[in-house]
Amino acid sequence: MNVVALAGGVGGAKLAFGLDRALVDAGQLTVVVNTADDLELHGLHVSPDLDTVMYTLAGLADRERGWGLAGETWHALKTLKRYGAETWFQLGDRDLATHVRRTARLAEGAPLGVVTGELASALGVHATLLPMSDDRVRTRVRTDAGWLDFQEWFVRRRQVDPLTEITFEGIETSRPAPGVRDAIASASLAVICPSNPLVSVGPILSVPGIREALLGAPAPVVAISPIVAGRALRGPADRMLAWLGAEVSAAGVAQLYAERHPTLLGGFVIDRQDEALAGRIEALGLRVLVADTVMESDDERVALGRTVLEWGRSLPRRA
Amino acid sequence: MNVVALAGGVGGAKLAFGLDRALVDAGQLTVVVNTADDLELHGLHVSPDLDTVMYTLAGLADRERGWGLAGETWHALKTLKRYGAETWFQLGDRDLATHVRRTARLAEGAPLGVVTGELASALGVHATLLPMSDDRVRTRVRTDAGWLDFQEWFVRRRQVDPLTEITFEGIETSRPAPGVRDAIASASLAVICPSNPLVSVGPILSVPGIREALLGAPAPVVAISPIVAGRALRGPADRMLAWLGAEVSAAGVAQLYAERHPTLLGGFVIDRQDEALAGRIEALGLRVLVADTVMESDDERVALGRTVLEWGRSLPRRA
Repeated sequence: MNVVALAGGVGGAKLAFGLDRALVDAGQLTVVVNTADDLELHGLHVSPDLDTVMYTLAGLADRERGWGLAGETWHALKTLKRYGAETWFQLGDRDLATHVRRTARLAEGAPLGVVTGELASALGVHATLLPMSDDRVRTRVRTDAGWLDFQEWFVRRRQVDPLTEITFEGIETSRPAPGVRDAIASASLAVICPSNPLVSVGPILSVPGIREALLGAPAPVVAISPIVAGRALRGPADRMLAWLGAEVSAAGVAQLYAERHPTLLGGFVIDRQDEALAGRIEALGLRVLVADTVMESDDERVALGRTVLEWGRSLPRRA
Repeated sequence: MNVVALAGGVGGAKLAFGLDRALVDAGQLTVVVNTADDLELHGLHVSPDLDTVMYTLAGLADRERGWGLAGETWHALKTLKRYGAETWFQLGDRDLATHVRRTARLAEGAPLGVVTGELASALGVHATLLPMSDDRVRTRVRTDAGWLDFQEWFVRRRQVDPLTEITFEGIETSRPAPGVRDAIASASLAVICPSNPLVSVGPILSVPGIREALLGAPAPVVAISPIVAGRALRGPADRMLAWLGAEVSAAGVAQLYAERHPTLLGGFVIDRQDEALAGRIEALGLRVLVADTVMESDDERVALGRTVLEWGRSLPRRA
């Protein structure tokens, strides 16, 4: 069973981990990851979502923080601070090596997708990890303080500024990274991970060709709600939905996908806590699976992965 | 008393430290450092000699290794190795931050001299630290294995290949870094540190304008022998002298300077162990100071610094 998953950072990484372990010896997982919140720091190319998924799949991620590597140290960052460099974006010593290596390989002319494969493979990742695009795309957000780079708003300003608009700079001319369309075409299930629909999944589906590939492929597309009991499990997705006028609930997320990407979704997975919303989501024309979607332990991740895979098998393929 | 010192790596750094501490509240030290063995690693600009002098002057250098920072950790390097990067050149986590910051500032358009000043100042270095040039100069050495980059020969191949020729790529068009000529012109003493005369001091004196500035300035120029009792205290200077047909002794070094840079040196400092060579060096027209030049402790460094400064004061100024 070939599965393609679209993922952002922490939430996406957890389900990607579950799918990966559930698929061992049973098929191949390709994870297509948001790169619109990549940034340049100290001259280095940092890909926060790619790294979160990579470290998680490799079993190296820090569980407490949710990002970065377990057992990380911060000597380089402290030294950078001493040199007067901006250190609002935390870079651990091991993590720094990832960015140094990625930047060096990119400077040598290797595309981001190739470099991503090299890094993931070196860390022992079994799944195929792909950036949504080798091309530069950057999320920018509009606030009362003007347009800000996504990480400036997300990390540096701690998401305090309400958003009125989100844009993905460079998205129009971006192309799916090599391998993305093939992975979608050969998948028997496409999974939209419980990532932020606006700034994680949004950019991926906005790369010209990716949504079209999903619509043209036989695999049913299912999404898992990142909103549970009216709140984002992590990050500002709930506030962002509210600022942009969407309903802050699993049903709101389903409706957002249905409106923005008609006919894309075949199924929608909600948490048991949101069971009462199932009817409203079915009314959008989606099949609904109610499951335990809050993943803390590895077991919970793999359990949800298995549940999603089994359910996905039962869904009708696209005509 | 303004003093200008020319220095390479470890030996130069030790005397620079001694001069710096001996001069506290009594004048200003400018250290002009070899950058011909700079290299690019993982896309980063590494300046081994500048960093050795900087860390030593800041009191942060590792005493055991002689290079790098005390209490250094190696997490990033291990990760780089895992990624398949070449790791024959050791970069500690804190040290890596120096290279990341330097590279970022250079990419922003800051010249190496400006960046060097920023880094040194951030680490609390009191002396003025200058690269010999903002321009790219690279030492290459000829061996039976062909021409090699200096660090390739020095670090990676551990200096096993005998040298037949040394060249400084880019030296003809290089210019002294801003501040170098002024420091020389306003100095009352110029000190050539006990660094490798061929690949540390050699490049500095070969930057068009630096030797001329020394010859045109009033300050007497004194050199301290890096060879004691027929051996280099550190590094391959002794073998290099032998390969290139020079005598491996303090007298051999004095002769090399006298031949390559006639009238440059006013004085030459040798270790007590080499007292017997004083007459031969005086025969070259140089004044000779016999002193304890083997510096281990900080006290020994400062003592030699004081001795050199006092002796330097007694030497005749250039006409």
